[in-house]
Amino acid sequence: MTNREFLTEYVFAFTNSLVQAGVQKAVISPGSRSTPLAYAFMKQEGMETYRQIDERSAGFYALGLAKATNSPVVLVCTSGTAAANYFPAIVEAFYARVPLIVVTADRPHELREVGAPQAINQINLFGSHVKWSADLPLPEQGNRLDYLTRHLARAAAVAETAPKGPIHLNVPFREPLGIDFDQPYESRGELTRFASSQQLSAEAQAFLLESLEQRRGLLIAGEHTGPISDRQWQFIRQLGWPVLADPLSNLRSNVPADLHGMIIDSYDALLKNESFSERSVPDVVVRIGPQPVSKPLSLFLTKRKPKRYIVIDESPMLRDPQSAVTHHIQQDSSVLWQLDLSEYKDSRYLNLWKEASVIARSAIAEHCAQQLDEGVLAKAFFEELDGCDLTVSSSMPIRDADTYFQATERDVQVFANRGANGIDGVVSTAFGIQAAKGRPGFLLIGDLALLHDLNGLIASKLQAADMTIVVMNNDGGGIFSYLPQSQEERYYEELFGTPTGIGFKSAAEMYDAEYFFADTVEELQLALRTRKEKPVRIIEVKTDRAHNVITHRKLWNRLNEELDKWN
Amino acid sequence: MTNREFLTEYVFAFTNSLVQAGVQKAVISPGSRSTPLAYAFMKQEGMETYRQIDERSAGFYALGLAKATNSPVVLVCTSGTAAANYFPAIVEAFYARVPLIVVTADRPHELREVGAPQAINQINLFGSHVKWSADLPLPEQGNRLDYLTRHLARAAAVAETAPKGPIHLNVPFREPLGIDFDQPYESRGELTRFASSQQLSAEAQAFLLESLEQRRGLLIAGEHTGPISDRQWQFIRQLGWPVLADPLSNLRSNVPADLHGMIIDSYDALLKNESFSERSVPDVVVRIGPQPVSKPLSLFLTKRKPKRYIVIDESPMLRDPQSAVTHHIQQDSSVLWQLDLSEYKDSRYLNLWKEASVIARSAIAEHCAQQLDEGVLAKAFFEELDGCDLTVSSSMPIRDADTYFQATERDVQVFANRGANGIDGVVSTAFGIQAAKGRPGFLLIGDLALLHDLNGLIASKLQAADMTIVVMNNDGGGIFSYLPQSQEERYYEELFGTPTGIGFKSAAEMYDAEYFFADTVEELQLALRTRKEKPVRIIEVKTDRAHNVITHRKLWNRLNEELDKWN
Repeated sequence: MTNREFLTEYVFAFTNSLVQAGVQKAVISPGSRSTPLAYAFMKQEGMETYRQIDERSAGFYALGLAKATNSPVVLVCTSGTAAANYFPAIVEAFYARVPLIVVTADRPHELREVGAPQAINQINLFGSHVKWSADLPLPEQGNRLDYLTRHLARAAAVAETAPKGPIHLNVPFREPLGIDFDQPYESRGELTRFASSQQLSAEAQAFLLESLEQRRGLLIAGEHTGPISDRQWQFIRQLGWPVLADPLSNLRSNVPADLHGMIIDSYDALLKNESFSERSVPDVVVRIGPQPVSKPLSLFLTKRKPKRYIVIDESPMLRDPQSAVTHHIQQDSSVLWQLDLSEYKDSRYLNLWKEASVIARSAIAEHCAQQLDEGVLAKAFFEELDGCDLTVSSSMPIRDADTYFQATERDVQVFANRGANGIDGVVSTAFGIQAAKGRPGFLLIGDLALLHDLNGLIASKLQAADMTIVVMNNDGGGIFSYLPQSQEERYYEELFGTPTGIGFKSAAEMYDAEYFFADTVEELQLALRTRKEKPVRIIEVKTDRAHNVITHRKLWNRLNEELDKWN
Repeated sequence: MTNREFLTEYVFAFTNSLVQAGVQKAVISPGSRSTPLAYAFMKQEGMETYRQIDERSAGFYALGLAKATNSPVVLVCTSGTAAANYFPAIVEAFYARVPLIVVTADRPHELREVGAPQAINQINLFGSHVKWSADLPLPEQGNRLDYLTRHLARAAAVAETAPKGPIHLNVPFREPLGIDFDQPYESRGELTRFASSQQLSAEAQAFLLESLEQRRGLLIAGEHTGPISDRQWQFIRQLGWPVLADPLSNLRSNVPADLHGMIIDSYDALLKNESFSERSVPDVVVRIGPQPVSKPLSLFLTKRKPKRYIVIDESPMLRDPQSAVTHHIQQDSSVLWQLDLSEYKDSRYLNLWKEASVIARSAIAEHCAQQLDEGVLAKAFFEELDGCDLTVSSSMPIRDADTYFQATERDVQVFANRGANGIDGVVSTAFGIQAAKGRPGFLLIGDLALLHDLNGLIASKLQAADMTIVVMNNDGGGIFSYLPQSQEERYYEELFGTPTGIGFKSAAEMYDAEYFFADTVEELQLALRTRKEKPVRIIEVKTDRAHNVITHRKLWNRLNEELDKWN
């Protein structure tokens, strides 16, 4: 076998083993050293490839693909700082438990750490933020391909074993880098893996069932990226508990008509009210998914310390920032829905939440009829959505979704990057989700986050896309207006406001996207309802940071008064 | 002392110690957790602050500042993926030996790894790509400030001790994050450091002097970012060796009239010629700085293996990708210029290079008179520059500079990121250099690299700038046309060409920059000569990838023929 033949065999074995292990998508960035792998991924049957020039954006694009499909996605880049650009997305994937297989091409040993170009120390490059990292051997005679195929099976297995996460394979290549596309590849004896399914212990099951029998119980649902089944809705129906549904729980959309009252979407507002918070202390809390975004809910759990706070979390690294959890059931949250509950019994505790919710909804509705601010515009936006996916940025948009994305029978799956809550890579994540799901994608984002990952738009020039971006342009960092920093005038605009004066009409032109400007609800609706002709539409909504804070506080004060009256 | 008072004292001690250690510049990105430090840096006398919203660009901006000043520059960001975005610039700084002090704010221990937002494992976040990493204590009573001030002195000392490089300080803060701006700070007993200067051993000096006496000697000068002194020019004059000057050596500009012939700027072209390469083998090579960009020069050194190949390099990690070096003098290259040489003796070896250079220059001149390609346009651009700094991107622009930036008495300092040779962060590096130097900055860059770090332009909205960007837009990755990959048509455009169809007129509008389009030498000259009114000017030059390769090869063939005739 010539070296070229062996190289070809090596990279074909590489991509073939991944397909065998169920991996179907790869995001490739241009580069020279990665040539043999890039070729093999392009040629590999059963592998869909995507391209992105900026590796940072590529990382978040892959993250979006993996979030939407819940399956490992491959990243391929050349040697050098290209690989370092993946780091933010890898960190996010690690904490958000998203399976990624990061493949970095490397130079052979004789070109490492000797001053050769584009050679950096790629061994364990991503430190403790990958679940596993391996430096593979050169594709040269003597290196065994049966070992390679099994290592790739391990890569996919580690990435998708709970808690899921990113893994890293470093692959050195020596020049010449060309392969023979027409060389036949015969898959020989790749590993077949049977993943075991976790079983709830009898003890844990009994404990959980007993807990669910309590009448003053709260189900808290954090981020969940899969679809919600009829079985799950039926479980909620039978449980008869109020369900505090984070906007990312996906329990706020596709809601069966009879369950609307049980899905509590206004707890963030309600729990700000002292007397409601006191009256609503539960005996039992069951949480699935990570801690919701709501700060009042976190404070409620810390301050009111429910006697039994059960978290169902598949990882030994329990997510419990308040140290308030009392029972950790280390198991995938899907176990909950499999439980058989006795018949539904109406409860006064549920009614307490239902009634408070009605008050909150009506206060919000009145607010929206009278005011115009970022939240009001966000609500109008959310209400236009159906049959699509929505990504919301960190910082204000996720909070606007928490307050204004109300339980609905419409079909909208909501995504955000909550592993590390960065404002980086949000555009790319949205495009990745859209590419994986195939239906229209929507993104709600602030001006700083859009600017941060404007390169996410490059994806739309390299493959099909269907994305509407609503950018709330308040010219700077809006969230700081809600934080104590805003009380100190000195250096405020320089350090926190950071206004850039940048608008996005030119950005839309640059990427040949449709552009609309809106600063009323009607203009926003019109922009959203206009027939979309191009892959990307940007709707720029101008809002005012100072004004947003004032009207926002007005709403909370009003609701507070209403609740005090009612209590 | 209250907690607030102690926090104030802590951050004032932090910034004060850095100023005491000679640190003068800090680049701050917006964020909440870093608030106390950001305040202190803004307030600190003797500290100049810069702002950038995108932390990846902030990293490269700081790199530019540090390269231009040869002094440590501070980076400050909040917790979470913000810090991970610094990684590419840190890797580049590590290999380019640029001193950076990376300060990442962190959450206190009780909020780490518990599912709290914006908390990631920041301990040793940058792995083996920083020279030192420390996790500092909380600013709370009981933690000693004398220890803090000395650790900051260590930070600056480690960053600027040869080989220079980045260091990382992780600093946790617990809420509340406000400080008292008016609290007096009295510097008490900070450490004063006397850095020792390296001395050449008598043995090494004798060896070097004896080597420099040889007549068939070559001085190879790689990247050097400081100014060139009269002493250095005088040394070159006395040495009487041809000086193969990399475009980043800064020996190609400010060249005294009588030395023009000795500065060989066409070795990349000359050494492609087989017979010239054979005739010009030296007895001794002395190299300062890293390996130059020229591939023919690398091949020449590998193939012709000079008997004595001496490298003066301050680091134990010798840069010698060809394993051809025979003597490593571990010492700063400045030691060379201090040597006293005997009188200059004219040599036939120098004349060989001088004559060949004349042939190369005339072939290039003829080529430029007849053709229009990227190189010709680059040469016209270079010849317009005087009294300014030029940054060239990796990939094609650095190679165009190698061929077409000819030795001149004009005053142009040339910069590039050659630590890891990435195309990332180039725009930010250029803006950082310009901000540090204060005189007009110029950037030569391809369309992909400009797109990759378009966010570098954000800097121009947050502080003063004077930058002219010449973007060679060949709609994709031009360098691949020169590599073997271009011989394979399959997947070529998807993987290597990666055309995006993006132009930069809208980008200029977005950043309120002046915009010119040029596709002839005259248009380019006109654009460069038009009086600049705004902080940023973008000149977009359209070229064709396929055509560039053809004319480029024509030039080499022609020169090859000329040299063959002469040999």
